Parts: sequence; C-alpha cells; structure tokens
Amino acid sequence: MHDLIRDVFLRYLKNPYLDKMADAAVINFGEKKLCLTTDSFVVKPLFFPGGDIGKLAICGTVNDLAVMGARPLFIACAMIIEEGFPMETLGRITQSLANQAKMAGVEIVTGDVKVVEKGSCDGIFINTTGVGEVLQGASLSVEAIRPSDKIIINGSIGLHGIAVLAGRKQLDFDFSIKSDCAPLNKLLLPLLKNPRTIKFMRDPTRGGLATTLNEITQGSNWGVMLEEKAIPVTPAVKSVCEILGLDPLYLANEGKAVIIVADEKAGGILRQIKKHPLGKEARIIGQIEKSPRGKVYLKTISGGKRIVDMPVADVLPRIC
Amino acid sequence: MHDLIRDVFLRYLKNPYLDKMADAAVINFGEKKLCLTTDSFVVKPLFFPGGDIGKLAICGTVNDLAVMGARPLFIACAMIIEEGFPMETLGRITQSLANQAKMAGVEIVTGDVKVVEKGSCDGIFINTTGVGEVLQGASLSVEAIRPSDKIIINGSIGLHGIAVLAGRKQLDFDFSIKSDCAPLNKLLLPLLKNPRTIKFMRDPTRGGLATTLNEITQGSNWGVMLEEKAIPVTPAVKSVCEILGLDPLYLANEGKAVIIVADEKAGGILRQIKKHPLGKEARIIGQIEKSPRGKVYLKTISGGKRIVDMPVADVLPRIC
Repeated sequence: MHDLIRDVFLRYLKNPYLDKMADAAVINFGEKKLCLTTDSFVVKPLFFPGGDIGKLAICGTVNDLAVMGARPLFIACAMIIEEGFPMETLGRITQSLANQAKMAGVEIVTGDVKVVEKGSCDGIFINTTGVGEVLQGASLSVEAIRPSDKIIINGSIGLHGIAVLAGRKQLDFDFSIKSDCAPLNKLLLPLLKNPRTIKFMRDPTRGGLATTLNEITQGSNWGVMLEEKAIPVTPAVKSVCEILGLDPLYLANEGKAVIIVADEKAGGILRQIKKHPLGKEARIIGQIEKSPRGKVYLKTISGGKRIVDMPVADVLPRIC
Repeated sequence: MHDLIRDVFLRYLKNPYLDKMADAAVINFGEKKLCLTTDSFVVKPLFFPGGDIGKLAICGTVNDLAVMGARPLFIACAMIIEEGFPMETLGRITQSLANQAKMAGVEIVTGDVKVVEKGSCDGIFINTTGVGEVLQGASLSVEAIRPSDKIIINGSIGLHGIAVLAGRKQLDFDFSIKSDCAPLNKLLLPLLKNPRTIKFMRDPTRGGLATTLNEITQGSNWGVMLEEKAIPVTPAVKSVCEILGLDPLYLANEGKAVIIVADEKAGGILRQIKKHPLGKEARIIGQIEKSPRGKVYLKTISGGKRIVDMPVADVLPRIC
C-alpha cells in the first residue's frame, strides 16, 4: 500500500521540495532559511512505557527539524478526537504536549480541534507541524557524504518499538523497556558549530536504523559498512527480539539520530555527544564505503557479512 | 464537548499566541512576519457539489492566512488513510489538492502519510498547515475596529453548508447548490494596499456569519448591526433553509470573508471587491455600533430587531 500511495503522490505532487523525499523542507524566507515539517501521530496505545502520544508528537517533529540543522521554534498542533473520548485522558495528553514543548524550547502557537462521531477515528490522532530556523553554516545533505565518513548513533536502538509493543500487552513478559522518546535538538544543534564536520543527520524512526541507512546509501550512492558489535542494543531489547524473531535494526527509535561525520573529526564529535545525557552511550557504528554502492552491509559478530535491506513491509504499524 | 475541550487546552497551553484564539499565529521570523495556521479536514462526504476534501484542505488554509493579511506561500500536508481506501479516490483527491494549490499560488513542500487499520479512521483525514508572509503595513486586529466601520461580505452565504448536506443525500430535492469553496488570497490581499482602511478580516466557516460576527463583537467589545435585507442569500439556499428549518447565518462558508472597513473608505473597497470574480455579489451588510456592546443584532426585513447569538451546538458536524 505504501508504494501505491507514493506513486499516487509522485504523479500529482512533483516539485523540487517534495522530490527530495526528506522529512522536512528547507525554504528561503527573507534573509533566513526556514525548515518546515509535518507528522501525524496515530500511535497505539496512546500511553506506553516511557511516553505517550503527546510527548511523541512534540519529540517527533522537533527531531525532524533538528536533523535538518534547524533550531525548532514553533509548533502548530491539530487534533482529531473521537466523540466521547475521556476528558481526563485528553488532559493528560495535552499536559504532556505542553511539558515536552517546554522541555524542547518550542512554542505551540496555533492549533485546531475536530471532533468526529464515535467509530470515525480511533480515540485521538495528533498532527504537529514544526517551523525551525536553519542554523547559519549548517549545510547538511547526502551529497556531502564521502567514503571514510564515520557513522555515529547516540545510543541504544529499538527501545521505542519494543516499548510500544509492551504497551499493547503483546508481550507476556516484563523487561521494563522504556521508549527512548526525547527531543534531540539540544544534543544535535551544538555539533553544527564545528564547520565542515557534520555531513548529514537523520532520525531512524519508522523502519529503524536499517531503513535510514538504506535511504542514505540510495541518496548518496555510496555504500555503508556497519559493525554489528559496535551497535548499541540493550540486553533487554536483544532478548525480546530473540524471543519474537524481530531484528533491532528495523525497530523504531524516537530519541536517536544517525550522524554522518568527516572521518578526521569523528573522535572529537563522539566525545562531544557523550557529554550530553542523551548521548552517553553514543558509538561509532560503521562508515561510508565506496562499494557496494547503494547498499548497507553488516559485519556480523561472528565474522560474517550480510546485506541489510530495506524492510519488505511496515514491521510494526501505528508505532508513531 | 467543544467547551470541555477548550477548557482542557486553556488549562495546559496558555501562551500569548494561543490566548488570542485566532485561526492563525503571527510570528517574527528574521526581519519578516510569518503567519502559521493549521487545520484538519474531516468533511463527510469526501466529494460534494462544488468541491472535495482536497480542494477544501487547500482553500481552508489559504483563506486562514489571507484573512490575517498574509500571502500564502507554503503548505505542509499530512494524510491519515484507512487501509483499503481506493487508490483511484486517493488519486482524485491528490490531483484536486495539487490543482488547487497551483490556483492559489502555494507550494506543497512537505508531507506525511499514515495508514491505519480498517475501521480506525473514516476513509481519509487531511491536515494542512500553511506558512504565509504577513504583508508589510497590514495590521489587522479587532482592536482596530471602531463604531461606524462597515461590514462587507464578498457574496452569498450558506452555500458550502448546504452543498455538503446535499452531498450526504440528506436532501430529497435538487436545488443544484454548489459549495463556494475558493481561495480568497487574490481577492483579499490587494485590498490591503489601501493604508489604514481594512481593520479586520475573517472567513466565516464553521458556525457561519453569526459565529464570526459574535467573535468580533466579543473581541472588540463593540456591537454589530446587521441589515437582513442586505445579506446576500441565494433563493435556493433560502428555500432549503425554510424547508429544513436552518438559519443561513449559521451555515458554513468556504469562499467568503467578512471584511471590516473604515466607514469613509467602504464604498471604494466595495467597488474594488466587486471587480474580482469572487466578489461580484459583495455587499455592505451592516456596521459596527457602540451598543449593545459585545452583541450582534439583526434589523429584520419586516422591520423588527433580534439578537443573533452564538450557536448553541455544532449545527452541522464534519462540514469541513
């Protein structure tokens, strides 16, 4: 279905902004560059270990701006609410939105609420659109990526995906895994003060690290080599994945960024990331290679090598 | 339910932007003023005489920017689609979005699509967020309104509301009423070139002319006097309203603006509006009065006077 939808959109909505297929658009606005991004949140359940739809709606949009090198400034927030939705729950979600916006330093400046009849939507859907200002000197793009550039991630992968599964009571065991849902702007934006260092950033949400890296190889036409042993995965996520037959590389993250850094600056950037509470477990997990072009391969712990493909289908629907 | 929701939001989301309760926020961005607005469209049915959800999603957001004195520039568009939604229908809607954006002179620069399981949403919901640039010298606000200012509307009221009802097959008769759904930016923005002339503009959508005028009186603390005989209502809308017991003052419009103009400039502005295809039936329908403060009253055709209140409930749900 996703491919069909993409085909429909590409047929009617071709323009230089959308053709980039990024999660955000960069636009000239006066003497500044504005970054605009939108996301609807349909996560199920609304509350999960480590977060809720309100927190997610702010973090997701803030992170989409931050990875574009934009300081998140303003949020427009629209809700579609099913008639009879409990006011107490709406209050908790709204409070979470407000708290998270404060924490991320963004202001919710405008909004919209539509109420639909019972049965016409599943509880509540939240859309957030973010406006940010692209930092001067930040010129992040896949075109800037070169072989030997290092790939950094700021911590353990797969936490959000497993936390939402846990929230659905689809797990019969309790590993107390919490979503990593967090606003990354205060971690990522200071890194851009180092000129010609950060080439590209992306948050590996739906489809996980594997999807993001595949998009990078397809966009840049270089290859990616990943070191399995370097990729941080908590023992709890590893165990759940083994039991359920899931691959952490494809699980959603909501507080992680893939950061592509010039080889010679990677050590310094890693140290800088590790100083931030959201980057303590950061690691260099691989690098850009000349070949195989357009492919991601993984050096496994056992010494083997395997291609990491795009996911065949949405591994977990309604994860965000 | 709407009051409850408003109370929840006001409790947690107080800030100078939201406290204005406008449909859009004006923000300083560099040396320019940016206008940001968001709306979710949940109209039922998706296609109705004179429009569809795609056309509506562009016009609604373009008009929310235009009435703030902002030139609409960019749109972020997010869709929530029910699994199994016909691709052919999605194609028609997307084409309509694209056509309408072109007509209004805005670019859809970023987007998002979420697919939810069958039964989790009613077909398709579309959110559009618009970014505009506030025209220099445009300082529209209810505070600028003064007694004797004239109230202009650019044409007949109630067409959208009745067209959607007709689309629902709730009418057993065919008056061939079409929605007035249209982008108003090219009609409204040129009016602002006349300095100190246009005080305030608003598009009377959900809740109709009555609701918009009540919001104006409550915001400005002046009164409004309406001349019933001056308010343009087509014979078809009049007939349907009589049969169904509806009041056209409360019916939704999607191609109308209420324009508050300095008394001495009203004649000139009316002539300018009438020259535009979307303003041919424009009329001065009343004026701002010192009393009764905060109230809208109507001089009826029969010579009586009655207060026009806020609607007690959503007259027609899912009208946009």
